[in-house]
Amino acid sequence: MSYQSFNPPRRILMGPGPSDISPEVLSALSRPVIGHLDPLFIGMMDEVKSLLQYAFQTKNEFTIALSAPGSAGMEACFVNLVEAGDKVIVCRNGVFGDRMIQNVIRIGAEAIIVDSPWGRAVEVDKVEQALIANPEAKFLAFVHAETSTGAVSDAKSLCALALQHNCLSIVDAVTSLGGIELKVDDWGIDAIYSGSQKCLSCVPGLSPLSFSEKAVNVIKNRQSVVQSWFLDQSLVMGYWSGEGKRSYHHTAPVNSLYALHESLVQLHNEGLENSWARHKKQHETLAKGLENLGIKFIVPKEERLPQLNAIYIPDGIDDVKVRSYLLNHYNLEIGAGLGELAGKAWRIGTMGYTAKSENIALCLSALEDALNQ
Amino acid sequence: MSYQSFNPPRRILMGPGPSDISPEVLSALSRPVIGHLDPLFIGMMDEVKSLLQYAFQTKNEFTIALSAPGSAGMEACFVNLVEAGDKVIVCRNGVFGDRMIQNVIRIGAEAIIVDSPWGRAVEVDKVEQALIANPEAKFLAFVHAETSTGAVSDAKSLCALALQHNCLSIVDAVTSLGGIELKVDDWGIDAIYSGSQKCLSCVPGLSPLSFSEKAVNVIKNRQSVVQSWFLDQSLVMGYWSGEGKRSYHHTAPVNSLYALHESLVQLHNEGLENSWARHKKQHETLAKGLENLGIKFIVPKEERLPQLNAIYIPDGIDDVKVRSYLLNHYNLEIGAGLGELAGKAWRIGTMGYTAKSENIALCLSALEDALNQ
Repeated sequence: MSYQSFNPPRRILMGPGPSDISPEVLSALSRPVIGHLDPLFIGMMDEVKSLLQYAFQTKNEFTIALSAPGSAGMEACFVNLVEAGDKVIVCRNGVFGDRMIQNVIRIGAEAIIVDSPWGRAVEVDKVEQALIANPEAKFLAFVHAETSTGAVSDAKSLCALALQHNCLSIVDAVTSLGGIELKVDDWGIDAIYSGSQKCLSCVPGLSPLSFSEKAVNVIKNRQSVVQSWFLDQSLVMGYWSGEGKRSYHHTAPVNSLYALHESLVQLHNEGLENSWARHKKQHETLAKGLENLGIKFIVPKEERLPQLNAIYIPDGIDDVKVRSYLLNHYNLEIGAGLGELAGKAWRIGTMGYTAKSENIALCLSALEDALNQ
Repeated sequence: MSYQSFNPPRRILMGPGPSDISPEVLSALSRPVIGHLDPLFIGMMDEVKSLLQYAFQTKNEFTIALSAPGSAGMEACFVNLVEAGDKVIVCRNGVFGDRMIQNVIRIGAEAIIVDSPWGRAVEVDKVEQALIANPEAKFLAFVHAETSTGAVSDAKSLCALALQHNCLSIVDAVTSLGGIELKVDDWGIDAIYSGSQKCLSCVPGLSPLSFSEKAVNVIKNRQSVVQSWFLDQSLVMGYWSGEGKRSYHHTAPVNSLYALHESLVQLHNEGLENSWARHKKQHETLAKGLENLGIKFIVPKEERLPQLNAIYIPDGIDDVKVRSYLLNHYNLEIGAGLGELAGKAWRIGTMGYTAKSENIALCLSALEDALNQ
């Protein structure tokens, strides 16, 4: 058997992630590998940390990029903070809230589930009732931007409630970081994780992570050992700490971190608020165009994520046929529905480097063509 | 504050990993990202699977690249196979055997430790005694190539013993895969993990993984749920299976997998046996040169890994000063000692793309200069 190099086509990625990657980030990715304990690399990691603090709007000392995808970032938050027997209030309004529950259960902790409809924001009043009804709960966990439905939740109010009821907040910001307003310190978020391949437009495989001082203290005062060696952040803290000597934990994904550094430099150069505004503007153009095509959004206007547009597949239209047509004729990827919305919805992502006028124009035009086939 | 792009120098990486990466692999890495559910990407993943089966010398259907570093690969083997209360015989002759023990303990299983001296192979007769003394043990775990000491263990004999005593074997091949003889099916290895950044000379961050049919059956018949959601391979099997529809688990690290594909194509083109022979030949040149410099190896000749040369730091020589000199004057990285050998040893890696005559010549010459400073 003979094997050839793999040469992918240039796709335009307008699904739920990965998003398009800029030439600058791809170029950074392919720079020569250096050792993960090389002083120059450690200097770069210090910058990654500062840049992540900027992106998260936090001064949290514990702010790192986990060497694995967002799902591992989620698990890192839960296994480090939550212990067996703890009560965790988990909000579920899509696939990723449900995944949080799986994480809580696998720790041997108790998940108190607050369900809100798919395609809607987490219902703040229901969460408040759950907090009142469960005064012994230690954590409130929710998804800021539900990638499976395109709904944004009111992270600021939810974190304020958590604080009021002596709960630490655990927030999924996989799809929100860089794309919409997110202020870790101002909102009092205690543990937050994201993904590299969404609005940061870096390669998939890294999970930015930040813990408040309160969260770090919880980790330091655990009764039990963290069940995962790889995700035990007390072991990782030594590697990312700014205090000179780095202790070896695992080999960092050097080249992916070059790419993350570059994507964060680009975000910093653009300015966080400008990036949020760009996502909003491109979303508005897209939404208008979709409405002109007679397409309906799943999420009510005021709860919509600009960077992830979940829409109903029009009646009589073949899901797979349209997505294949877009991919084969236009090199354009849009996302399928997930979970309850599989077969019923498409998800059009306009994240990070993808959020550009030329992509919105192409998408509208190509979709119109595909629907008329 | 202002941030610049990071432009690393071209280092020559002769430490314990990452090893040097070829221009072809770096070029594959930076190709345009495509969706992780794109049919073209799934086709490439099928090839990655076949190529990994070739590298591991196995027909195991469950052969994948885990989306995280080798330490996560280790944890994946333990958390999927071992359940709380199980007895696991773990061989410890360096840092990574010890890490296996930490993994066993965190599952709530019992580790029966067989210690062999650091810098030596695992003692097969001691392992046999432990197997006889613990007939209820379910697993035998050991490190094929101990990266912390440079010793190779007799994987073939150890796996034969495991089979004889009804244990499944769990093998760390992080540093061995591609560099020395390794035959998963012939030797009857049940669970094996490796790393992308050693003799495969790919970017760090992926962990090739293979489970025998017996191991897969153990996973399928577990009494308890795997404690890690991210590492639960029963959820991942659907994503890597060759049967058409891929189920979503997490976003695969697309670009790193391009690079792994290319590095495996290169290994296939060279031929596995040729790669083993190249590592051996370059090691012999290096070893001869080091002996000419009066440098002593930690590991006896017949137990030495060709790809990782652990040597004693000569008396009166400053560890850090020499390594810094090599890095600053020659862009040459050699590895520090780890664990018990910290401050006492250097580790010179000649792995994968690094194992070339020009690098050996440079290393000997530069080291001689550094020792005379």
